[in-house]
Amino acid sequence: MSNQKFEKIEAIKVTELDKILGKPFPVLNDGFVRVIDYMGTDESIVQAARVSYGKGTKQVQQDRGLIRYLMRHRHTTPFEMCEIKLHLRVPMDCWRQWIRHRTANINEYSTRYSIAIDAAQTTAKNEWRIQSKSNKQGSEGFADEKLGEELTLEELKLHDLSRNIYNKRIDLGIAREQARKDLPLATYTEAYWKIDLHNLLHFLELRMDKHAQYEIRKYSETIGYEIVKRWAPLAWEAFEDYRLGSREFSKLELDVLSSIIKNDTETGLKLAERAGWLETRKDGSLKQNLERIEFEEKAYRLSVKLPWRV
Amino acid sequence: MSNQKFEKIEAIKVTELDKILGKPFPVLNDGFVRVIDYMGTDESIVQAARVSYGKGTKQVQQDRGLIRYLMRHRHTTPFEMCEIKLHLRVPMDCWRQWIRHRTANINEYSTRYSIAIDAAQTTAKNEWRIQSKSNKQGSEGFADEKLGEELTLEELKLHDLSRNIYNKRIDLGIAREQARKDLPLATYTEAYWKIDLHNLLHFLELRMDKHAQYEIRKYSETIGYEIVKRWAPLAWEAFEDYRLGSREFSKLELDVLSSIIKNDTETGLKLAERAGWLETRKDGSLKQNLERIEFEEKAYRLSVKLPWRV
Amino acid sequence: MSNQKFEKIEAIKVTELDKILGKPFPVLNDGFVRVIDYMGTDESIVQAARVSYGKGTKQVQQDRGLIRYLMRHRHTTPFEMCEIKLHLRVPMDCWRQWIRHRTANINEYSTRYSIAIDAAQTTAKNEWRIQSKSNKQGSEGFADEKLGEELTLEELKLHDLSRNIYNKRIDLGIAREQARKDLPLATYTEAYWKIDLHNLLHFLELRMDKHAQYEIRKYSETIGYEIVKRWAPLAWEAFEDYRLGSREFSKLELDVLSSIIKNDTETGLKLAERAGWLETRKDGSLKQNLERIEFEEKAYRLSVKLPWRV
Amino acid sequence: MSNQKFEKIEAIKVTELDKILGKPFPVLNDGFVRVIDYMGTDESIVQAARVSYGKGTKQVQQDRGLIRYLMRHRHTTPFEMCEIKLHLRVPMDCWRQWIRHRTANINEYSTRYSIAIDAAQTTAKNEWRIQSKSNKQGSEGFADEKLGEELTLEELKLHDLSRNIYNKRIDLGIAREQARKDLPLATYTEAYWKIDLHNLLHFLELRMDKHAQYEIRKYSETIGYEIVKRWAPLAWEAFEDYRLGSREFSKLELDVLSSIIKNDTETGLKLAERAGWLETRKDGSLKQNLERIEFEEKAYRLSVKLPWRV
Repeated sequence: MSNQKFEKIEAIKVTELDKILGKPFPVLNDGFVRVIDYMGTDESIVQAARVSYGKGTKQVQQDRGLIRYLMRHRHTTPFEMCEIKLHLRVPMDCWRQWIRHRTANINEYSTRYSIAIDAAQTTAKNEWRIQSKSNKQGSEGFADEKLGEELTLEELKLHDLSRNIYNKRIDLGIAREQARKDLPLATYTEAYWKIDLHNLLHFLELRMDKHAQYEIRKYSETIGYEIVKRWAPLAWEAFEDYRLGSREFSKLELDVLSSIIKNDTETGLKLAERAGWLETRKDGSLKQNLERIEFEEKAYRLSVKLPWRV
Repeated sequence: MSNQKFEKIEAIKVTELDKILGKPFPVLNDGFVRVIDYMGTDESIVQAARVSYGKGTKQVQQDRGLIRYLMRHRHTTPFEMCEIKLHLRVPMDCWRQWIRHRTANINEYSTRYSIAIDAAQTTAKNEWRIQSKSNKQGSEGFADEKLGEELTLEELKLHDLSRNIYNKRIDLGIAREQARKDLPLATYTEAYWKIDLHNLLHFLELRMDKHAQYEIRKYSETIGYEIVKRWAPLAWEAFEDYRLGSREFSKLELDVLSSIIKNDTETGLKLAERAGWLETRKDGSLKQNLERIEFEEKAYRLSVKLPWRV
Repeated sequence: MSNQKFEKIEAIKVTELDKILGKPFPVLNDGFVRVIDYMGTDESIVQAARVSYGKGTKQVQQDRGLIRYLMRHRHTTPFEMCEIKLHLRVPMDCWRQWIRHRTANINEYSTRYSIAIDAAQTTAKNEWRIQSKSNKQGSEGFADEKLGEELTLEELKLHDLSRNIYNKRIDLGIAREQARKDLPLATYTEAYWKIDLHNLLHFLELRMDKHAQYEIRKYSETIGYEIVKRWAPLAWEAFEDYRLGSREFSKLELDVLSSIIKNDTETGLKLAERAGWLETRKDGSLKQNLERIEFEEKAYRLSVKLPWRV
Repeated sequence: MSNQKFEKIEAIKVTELDKILGKPFPVLNDGFVRVIDYMGTDESIVQAARVSYGKGTKQVQQDRGLIRYLMRHRHTTPFEMCEIKLHLRVPMDCWRQWIRHRTANINEYSTRYSIAIDAAQTTAKNEWRIQSKSNKQGSEGFADEKLGEELTLEELKLHDLSRNIYNKRIDLGIAREQARKDLPLATYTEAYWKIDLHNLLHFLELRMDKHAQYEIRKYSETIGYEIVKRWAPLAWEAFEDYRLGSREFSKLELDVLSSIIKNDTETGLKLAERAGWLETRKDGSLKQNLERIEFEEKAYRLSVKLPWRV
């Protein structure tokens, strides 16, 4: 073998994460997330990137800068070198969204082998959310508490009834795999969930988003702020800057903005018009156009005033 | 470019499959499976294998032989060249097992966007299954019909109640994503599910197995016998022979069998003993040992008589 | 089964793509790309999205708007419903980058089974690229033709020698799997490569980028402009707008830009300073800072003048 | 939160593996494999399986029995809970086969960023393998040493020439990404390769097989016997028994064997005939039939005498 020298390998310690190993962070009325095991940290990301880039990079770029560079350019493979295993307790309804992410390793509690967990997500009287009108898949605001109280009571009764029926079936010797069929979707399940940091951040980007459903958002925020932030603080910082807080502008949007910024309002308007953004109703008001509305929000973020919004 | 000659490309037609395109095959009380689109067939498997093996193979091996060879040796990549897209209607409970297979493309009906499908899997009075005693995750036999009738009635009432509560929440303006939380697990969902033939056969191998839950087994059998058999008949035949009807013997099992077949009973017994298969209870009967019991079933399949079973 | 009505399924035709089925598009000196088979088109993306969103969406949003919405919000699963199978001829050196994309199905020509393809990528005298100084992994400009001529001649001789040694080994009965070991990395290979549209677009985004190596960029451009554009023109248009021509701004970049645009230069400078962008050398000039340099390019795209660049 | 009790989490130590952390195991003339990091062990497999099976299993089955059960029934997800990161040095030719396994995380040494590693796999005079006649993709036996000496000398010269041309290109300022194009396929590369235990065992099953190419087989054996055996000894033992040493029999093969074992030779012959196994040449000898030949090997393993082989 060539006269290569090998660095000594020592387990990389993440003191901050080790402190919370096994500790359950409560989520919703009866769920939790806790870290069971992990592998790697910020240092492993850097180490992996440097294998690709070869020697010499070390002196030029510091760790933080390198991690930011990788995040900015979506060089994702070094982030895959970190792996974490979580123990979760989640309502099945929420879990269905969760496992749509296909790149994790999963072992879930089986209600074919064992009696279903005797808990379902409950809703406090002030937690009933109103269907959003602007967003077909979202909610906005809460029902008033009096109505909420009624709904909560009904929920409780339904949970009790479903559970009683389940228990009766079990007592009568019905197979567990069939007895469970009418438990509410909100019944809790538990799982080990193991995923690499790149895929975890992708999960968090989608599920910490304000359009994600409240329940999974609460889990994601806990994973992000309580766990990843402790585990790989530099990667987390870069993620907050380049993913959570970023905005992407399409070619068209860049063209419109650029025209407006250099005071060529005419071109800006022409481009917007050609894109169908400025169609009006009979009363002269702008028609609803999702693409334009989202652009307006982004222009506002940049403090750019739009000529059609004067 | 080199003077390569290219075969003319024509869409490969699978007359048998084209005949059933779009046709729903009913499964359970209100589910179905139907083919929406597909790509490739037996011929594509052969074509892909021949790219790997280069020219010359063509003359030597016939298509059927080649496909059998690929299946036998688990050369899986040529089977990945075929792709199928199905439209499914499945109880959510069953769907949870389904999507544990991570290698498919999925678009599922969203109950955040739309009102939940107004149907749940129901159980006829003679369909209530008894918990298996030998198999912790299975069922065996049925409850008597009188009991079944009671359970079916109760199921119906629970479905009605859950649905009414759901509808009431919706009418009161509660967000769809929250209103659905207490629907029964047996509520139907629909999805487009796209998968390549290799991964589909792997799915079928696991889910047509007698240990798979009844519900998903019914879907798998429909997909296998009604769809894959028409789509890629040579691959299906090889699959039935080399997967569904096959048995795998461990090194230990081969050693024991070989000893017994050549009448060296002593060695066979010694090996079985050393493996802990022949431990006895106080009354002299063999202790339950899963590994031995499964071996006995396989030996029986080969018509080999085991010395400890005389 | 419920009284559901099922649309009639007919094979969706993509006239433009059918016209070029099997036709090889030349790339480099002896490579090519050609379409062997495909499944789905723009219409399938829309259809899949509508399963998720349920009915009713149809009236509100037109196909083009829906596809743009999906692309903008990275709702990737509907794009996975389209699948394409290409036949490629690529230098092995380039192929090594290619197969780093792990989400495709591949059958490659095997030089264990067959004699290696007798062709390697050659370089014309005006095609020798100079190592970039600013970009450690790139090239810029070309060597002068006189030097190029010498290098091309040498390349030719090396190819001949390697091939002769290969042929000699084969003639002497050495195993193909070993004989090939010293062929140049530029030797051509062929493969069937099957991938869904979402993953193909991701591949193209990375490999059509100006930082991608010239060779794989040529293949990507051919796949993009000659194939995908014909196959799914609406998806392609959205891809060009939202991926190829887009820019992403980090939270920090948005903050700096917003300050400058609203003439709060002081805050803008403070933020840039705090980020370490404005460190100077002894002579007062700005130190090289990759993050700032990339930001400057993006600000320029928006026609925003930066205070430290006056 | 419910009154659940959580076990204390402590890092699971694998003393045997910790002892060799970072130590390079030499493979081929200049390659190596070494462990950089890992997560989990036999205990984690058991722990994950018990989440699925719920409590109660613990008492019934011991760890070893449970791991054997999981391996036997291809319950693969618990093995996915273990993860290992290796540092490899491999000839590119071999690496091409390696990365066909798509389920690993990879960071490879980049010859766009850095000068190519100055080493290629060399072949000693007694290591030149002869092309197998029975197996189109294999080798059998070695060329005689005199011939070997000549080939080795030629190999050396070619390596020198290729390297000189590479160095010259680099010295002349040609881009690294292009200069490398004619290096021999046998040039070494290095990579970090991270994979879970399930996928690693699958890799080993395929690549430790006698049909795998010599080079990758050497790496696989090193990984298996030096690393996995130390890391997860119970999983390794089960793997050796149920994978490396096992044989799978198709339905047809089971039928033929069963008939012969119970002395119903007639049926056995009929089945074999119908399968086309017993076709003869003009001289009465059996035609070559791959399926029959492989069956004969398996029957021999079981000490079953075949009627057509008397």
